[in-house]
Amino acid sequence: MYRTHTCGELRISHKKQEVTLSGWIQRLRKLGGMTFIDLRDRYGITQLVVDEKAADDLKEKVSKLGREFVIQTTGIVLERESKNNKIPTGEIEIDIKSITVLNKAETPPFTIQTDTDGGDELRMKYRYLDLRREVVRDNLVLRSKMAIIIRNYLDSLDFIETETPVLMKSTPEGARDFVVPSRMNPGEFYALPQSPQVFKQLLMVAGFDKYYQIVKCFRDEDLRADRQPEFTQIDCEMSFVEQEDVLATFEGLARHLFKEVKGIDPGIFPRIPYAEAMDKYGSDKPDTRFDMLFNDITEIAKGKEFSIFNNSEYIVAICAKGASEYSRKQLDALTNYVKRPQIGAKGLVYVKYNTDGTFKSSIDKFYDQNDFENWAKQCNANAGDLLLILSGNKFETQEQMCQLRLEMGRQLELIDKNQFNPLWVTDFPLLEWDDETQRYYAMHHPFTAPKPEDIELLESNPGQVRANAYDLVINGVEIGGGSVRIFDSALQSKMFKLLGFTEEQANAQFGFLMNAFKYGAPPHAGIAFGFDRLVSLFAGLDSIRDVIAFPKNNTGRDVMNDAPSQISEEQLKELFLKIALPQKQS
Amino acid sequence: MYRTHTCGELRISHKKQEVTLSGWIQRLRKLGGMTFIDLRDRYGITQLVVDEKAADDLKEKVSKLGREFVIQTTGIVLERESKNNKIPTGEIEIDIKSITVLNKAETPPFTIQTDTDGGDELRMKYRYLDLRREVVRDNLVLRSKMAIIIRNYLDSLDFIETETPVLMKSTPEGARDFVVPSRMNPGEFYALPQSPQVFKQLLMVAGFDKYYQIVKCFRDEDLRADRQPEFTQIDCEMSFVEQEDVLATFEGLARHLFKEVKGIDPGIFPRIPYAEAMDKYGSDKPDTRFDMLFNDITEIAKGKEFSIFNNSEYIVAICAKGASEYSRKQLDALTNYVKRPQIGAKGLVYVKYNTDGTFKSSIDKFYDQNDFENWAKQCNANAGDLLLILSGNKFETQEQMCQLRLEMGRQLELIDKNQFNPLWVTDFPLLEWDDETQRYYAMHHPFTAPKPEDIELLESNPGQVRANAYDLVINGVEIGGGSVRIFDSALQSKMFKLLGFTEEQANAQFGFLMNAFKYGAPPHAGIAFGFDRLVSLFAGLDSIRDVIAFPKNNTGRDVMNDAPSQISEEQLKELFLKIALPQKQS
Repeated sequence: MYRTHTCGELRISHKKQEVTLSGWIQRLRKLGGMTFIDLRDRYGITQLVVDEKAADDLKEKVSKLGREFVIQTTGIVLERESKNNKIPTGEIEIDIKSITVLNKAETPPFTIQTDTDGGDELRMKYRYLDLRREVVRDNLVLRSKMAIIIRNYLDSLDFIETETPVLMKSTPEGARDFVVPSRMNPGEFYALPQSPQVFKQLLMVAGFDKYYQIVKCFRDEDLRADRQPEFTQIDCEMSFVEQEDVLATFEGLARHLFKEVKGIDPGIFPRIPYAEAMDKYGSDKPDTRFDMLFNDITEIAKGKEFSIFNNSEYIVAICAKGASEYSRKQLDALTNYVKRPQIGAKGLVYVKYNTDGTFKSSIDKFYDQNDFENWAKQCNANAGDLLLILSGNKFETQEQMCQLRLEMGRQLELIDKNQFNPLWVTDFPLLEWDDETQRYYAMHHPFTAPKPEDIELLESNPGQVRANAYDLVINGVEIGGGSVRIFDSALQSKMFKLLGFTEEQANAQFGFLMNAFKYGAPPHAGIAFGFDRLVSLFAGLDSIRDVIAFPKNNTGRDVMNDAPSQISEEQLKELFLKIALPQKQS
Repeated sequence: MYRTHTCGELRISHKKQEVTLSGWIQRLRKLGGMTFIDLRDRYGITQLVVDEKAADDLKEKVSKLGREFVIQTTGIVLERESKNNKIPTGEIEIDIKSITVLNKAETPPFTIQTDTDGGDELRMKYRYLDLRREVVRDNLVLRSKMAIIIRNYLDSLDFIETETPVLMKSTPEGARDFVVPSRMNPGEFYALPQSPQVFKQLLMVAGFDKYYQIVKCFRDEDLRADRQPEFTQIDCEMSFVEQEDVLATFEGLARHLFKEVKGIDPGIFPRIPYAEAMDKYGSDKPDTRFDMLFNDITEIAKGKEFSIFNNSEYIVAICAKGASEYSRKQLDALTNYVKRPQIGAKGLVYVKYNTDGTFKSSIDKFYDQNDFENWAKQCNANAGDLLLILSGNKFETQEQMCQLRLEMGRQLELIDKNQFNPLWVTDFPLLEWDDETQRYYAMHHPFTAPKPEDIELLESNPGQVRANAYDLVINGVEIGGGSVRIFDSALQSKMFKLLGFTEEQANAQFGFLMNAFKYGAPPHAGIAFGFDRLVSLFAGLDSIRDVIAFPKNNTGRDVMNDAPSQISEEQLKELFLKIALPQKQS
């Protein structure tokens, strides 16, 4: 037996007991003739003491210990003289009688503590050491806790957890698949699932009624800041339901999580139609922890000599409360911020509503005090506020202003890190027009059902058709999304036609699912949540990387064990493959 | 709202209520002027009635319904005149007032009922229809139920569920990997995990203390009868534990499952050392639901004129109770059974212990009644029993007799399908000698720890060294296996040397894990269970295929959606690959 207790377990009530602990040496200190050892395991830290009067061989052993050594020790629980109220075991220490070194340790390349001296890259390479740090491990413990809470909640609602295949069929459209060559089927490939979409719809055809799975998905995309080639989805589907049933079910799940994990009740989730979200926040994933809503001043700002406004489709203002005293330097910095290529605005107009009631603006030349007062009124601005204005094409300008709004929220410290504002964005457009290819694309996917009241617009004005699609957004982050599916084959045919599929193409790509539908498909709807993102949100982290035990870097490499790697000629031959690397220029 | 209740929910207590149900039409019957409809969903079947006096348009609608149509219906709950006590809803029926056809259905290619008329291949192709059958769906519901029970049990013991990478590093030895070409790292490949072995050991180095995961694993093997290229493992690892802790923990899990799922307590699991299992059952996964133990009669059967026995290393007998009256034909069939190439015995010797106390044998020529009586005594045989005897090399003969014992258990109906006999097989040999390559191989894997008391044999007699390795066997099926791991680097080096690895080879293959161990590895041990097999055992099935929602066939194909398939030239080019199919002979 390696231990009678963990390092997080002993209290004053264990006083005088003989105990055996095992763990890692976090810290060694000598104080006079005494040695203090902080012994660490997953459950906590316990202080060990070797007294001056201890046996010589014990002292000898202790003198050879080092950081991160793994030891087993037996001793008596004592009450500490100077208690440490920062840790649960802070009232006691162990007067140790014997020590066994279970394993020595080389000095780790960075310190194993909350404020480590290790850089990102070093910590990725030695991820197994980084995971020893409490702050990192806590994220993974949270992940495990959230997973079991989610599972039990869905289980209690009669959802069947069903595993769908990882080796599946490659689909020609959509994001890029990872593929897996089949040795037994020469020249053919499996694909790894981007999502189990087809399978979960088949499970509805199969009468499973309620399905869920916490499942790995894969996308071979160029990895941006916070993407991983493999990620985890909470994937769900229900039969004989309408949109309202899905929202109620998963709002229930989310509220349950908030309650169990955070001890908070976020109340009924507001619902914001897509169009309203765009108008008010310039985003389909608005951060509603602060207001600073958009004010469309297009009508009232046009018609003077200022050609930039006159030539703009859309002029939008936000009111930064109490920011009228922003300095020249601060305003220049904001202008530079919106002109960054990632945001791409051409410039920024400001109007200071001075505390004395006068206005000062970067476009004083073209507008008078009355104009500004008019704008201020429209924006509910008061003396002391600052108006920030962008103009241009509507959609682009909304996106730019969305970024500026978030930046101002940060600068004015309006964003409470401990607040959670969940909401549903609903009524997404069914279709997106693509100028380049001159056709509509499904905004969600081709099985998304239009709102019944908009079906008549499908032929006359497809761009106006709203979908029974919904996203769960928390604090400006899209946590999940889903839709009611089309289960009527006539409507589905119409959709394919709209999306520019010939019957043949539709058959090649979706014929399989359509065939299944012929044998009696129930009305069904579903949703999928990004589990990595949900956990990172609950953990208060900006990146999903820290909630993944062994993440990959931006080029999809596992730097810890150096994957991917070359495989042998023999392996390639078995798979009927040859590598054809691009010729290097000489 | 599509339904007020499910089709499995209504009871006599709902009498006179108006209800709305949705589901599939299982059956339509006309009886006089009445029409009876069995409406089915996941939760059950409810009988609908359309009365003779119903409105014409309702009767018209009903006349157009067909099997597997999806309908919604509203009506009043009535007490049935002739109750059906075979189903929970058998006391009521619904007098329907309205019907909406949600979806029509083509006639399915086989009947959707327990005794279907569909063959294996047809049902695989239309798996989504096969899954509608209650017997098939029940297996998947059981799987879901067992998963959540397992998770909650391990969660309650502080195991952290941790997801390990699916895209990992290819390892040159072991079974064949499925590989995934990396677009971003030209010419390089990820591998899909055969098991998360390395990662779970790293998590122990990381101090996670207790890890589990229910996880897909992959093996690109030629698929035998009951293998799948992707399968699911319950993967676990613990730190600061000895073998006893692991066995206690997972015996607890298994007993909990038996109790929760089957309502039975199988008691303390017997433990059988490998050597004893081989001696008594000729198998490291003995089915102990019946005895018929092996009797080694080598010593007492040699030395007469029968050269086959005299030249045999090993002569083994089983006693088939009450089978002395087996006919010539039955005995010939048994002989043919053991001579089948899958078993490979050269012949079968029998000794009938007749009810009159005399013996009759196929080798009467060489042995007298005293000899047979001697053997019978050794085998605890009584008058009326039948001795069956095989001889040859020890290991092969044990395997052959194991098969014969199981066959006799079936023939004499000694195997109770409803009985569960779990046991631990322990003390496996650490190493296996391979004649062909003239070297030892690790029986489990190279990190398996030898039993401390056998370490001194490592150099003098490696083949005799027993490992701290263990299997959980239930009813003759290996359900799980694991081992205590080596965490001492000196011992690990010795193991690599024994296994014939040069230092370089050991480094190339395992250096990564060995490096991690340098920073303080705790003593640790683990186990993995085949989840598919565990569920199929609990479901009383012979094959794992029926507990997998979308299984593949023997050539690794998903015949339902025809995967794997070809991918485009463009995709291949992006992955820097060319296909090199073998030239066909012309």
